[in-house]
Amino acid sequence: MSERIVLAHGAGGRLSRRLVSELILKYFGHPVLRRLEDSAVLELSGGRWAFTTDSHVIRPLFFPGGDIGKLAVSGTVNDLLCAGARPLYLSLSLIIEEGLPIVDLDRILRSAADEAAAVGVNIVCGDTKVVERGKGDGLFINTAGVGSIPTGVDLSPEKIRVGDAILVSGTIGDHGIAILSQREGFELHSSLESDCAALHGPVLAAMEHPGVVHCLRDPTRGGLGTVLAEMAADRGVGMEVEQERIPMRDQVRGACEMLGLDPIYVANEGKMVMIVEWGQHEEVLSRLVKYPLSRRAALIGRVVEEHPGMAVLRTSAGGSRIIDLPTGELIPRIC
Amino acid sequence: MSERIVLAHGAGGRLSRRLVSELILKYFGHPVLRRLEDSAVLELSGGRWAFTTDSHVIRPLFFPGGDIGKLAVSGTVNDLLCAGARPLYLSLSLIIEEGLPIVDLDRILRSAADEAAAVGVNIVCGDTKVVERGKGDGLFINTAGVGSIPTGVDLSPEKIRVGDAILVSGTIGDHGIAILSQREGFELHSSLESDCAALHGPVLAAMEHPGVVHCLRDPTRGGLGTVLAEMAADRGVGMEVEQERIPMRDQVRGACEMLGLDPIYVANEGKMVMIVEWGQHEEVLSRLVKYPLSRRAALIGRVVEEHPGMAVLRTSAGGSRIIDLPTGELIPRIC
Repeated sequence: MSERIVLAHGAGGRLSRRLVSELILKYFGHPVLRRLEDSAVLELSGGRWAFTTDSHVIRPLFFPGGDIGKLAVSGTVNDLLCAGARPLYLSLSLIIEEGLPIVDLDRILRSAADEAAAVGVNIVCGDTKVVERGKGDGLFINTAGVGSIPTGVDLSPEKIRVGDAILVSGTIGDHGIAILSQREGFELHSSLESDCAALHGPVLAAMEHPGVVHCLRDPTRGGLGTVLAEMAADRGVGMEVEQERIPMRDQVRGACEMLGLDPIYVANEGKMVMIVEWGQHEEVLSRLVKYPLSRRAALIGRVVEEHPGMAVLRTSAGGSRIIDLPTGELIPRIC
Repeated sequence: MSERIVLAHGAGGRLSRRLVSELILKYFGHPVLRRLEDSAVLELSGGRWAFTTDSHVIRPLFFPGGDIGKLAVSGTVNDLLCAGARPLYLSLSLIIEEGLPIVDLDRILRSAADEAAAVGVNIVCGDTKVVERGKGDGLFINTAGVGSIPTGVDLSPEKIRVGDAILVSGTIGDHGIAILSQREGFELHSSLESDCAALHGPVLAAMEHPGVVHCLRDPTRGGLGTVLAEMAADRGVGMEVEQERIPMRDQVRGACEMLGLDPIYVANEGKMVMIVEWGQHEEVLSRLVKYPLSRRAALIGRVVEEHPGMAVLRTSAGGSRIIDLPTGELIPRIC
């Protein structure tokens, strides 16, 4: 490992994973943490609970389709949903840089409150810290969350089986490209918005029949590619997805070509990868497409026996390539 | 309210309270949050749970008696204890500034792990973000925590009654003065260490008989004075403490005189203010003094009928003064 922290340690790729496995898991060995899921699943007094945390450092604070407040609430809600939980309670902790206009903070808090109200989740505790000018960057927000997992729901990479359908709940890359285009000041042909949103509606609808959905992951930092590579490696199965089935907006495709980015590694903030029992996936899709947030949900591939531990992309041109964990620089501070 | 965030908004005094009441509670209205306790108390599936969050931005990262890792774990454990909970699970979320030496991060994580092991609390979920050089300050750590509240335990300012004893679990001001002396580079006559520590041992011992302890608060930012002023105002009772009964190290007294600080407003990170049934307080004290962390626990005053809503200090000189919420500048980034 290098001697100092670099930006890529936080970008969600190979270096992030090394930091966690070589440094953090060296000292914190609880089996629930070792699973490295989006949420910890805890058994408490007869019930099962999901517990998760995320610090949000996105730059800029306001972006097309959302802001850091909406992102903080929806990101934590989505992490709870990945554990099959009904989101109940959130904490909200602010690290504010001296000089932040109070009108900005007001707008961000209102946006967080609106998103929480839409989900029906309650903010029940919080904290506020202020750091000197130049020692922060406007605002960082940590949200931790608690949700209850209904009886019979048990989502985990261990439930993934050969033959399962791989679904994605909509177009990929919208968040990453929207942020990047605003940050770098380039114009897209039409306005592209971040997909930043809490997915409780579509996810709870998809899970109406317990047992049909085997595993959920939200492809945030590191994108769809990272989620597929990690799930294949964690479960020791092969995964195959077809490039042309992956829903993508033209603006995202165009921007990625222009910038030399691979869209499967670009961050999303309102999408879910769902591993679903084959044969039931049409039923799940039919439920998903009724929700505006998952109108473009699609079957993109299957879990296979071949190449265990690896995810493979079948390209539009008829070739195939391994979907590896990204090593190099991803987009920093995307969430 | 001013137009921009200033350091005092985060210092725990009057401006912090205004920020919370005028801005945060404007949007987040859940009755549990409105109580503004150290932990939220949630009723879930028959049991009662405490849920809390804290972001730690202390400067410097290493200080006599601890570091940000130990502080993050013990601070959240102490907040759970304030709700009468047995601390069970913590999250750990890092915001790292690019360039932090990995050896420093390693040392901090080890220290957090040691403190968690000493308490018997498990870190079960986490997050890591990295921000560019100059956009953070080495390391910020958020810890959220979950604990279970045993049947029969019900701590709250509402339980405070006229006549109750006011105890403090040891000397005040150690943390604030230790940080300040290191930061400003002045030498104390003998080495003073922060009191930074998790208080599960003394607190659980003090609470052996449910009902005897009515309310707990850890006097961190804003110190003993802020806790007393807030409790008196929240409950609408009078509080009286005697200056000469408040345990204090000579170095803290000396440094406060030199710097013009009032020690009752200086931060602690390993102390507890306990409101205890009068007549039972000797028994509680006798249990506390068996623990090294609360060896100097003392009775400092009583809850009174006079001057409801106000805390009053009886000075050594025979006078008395109102203990108000501090308005001006406290020590920034003390936790």
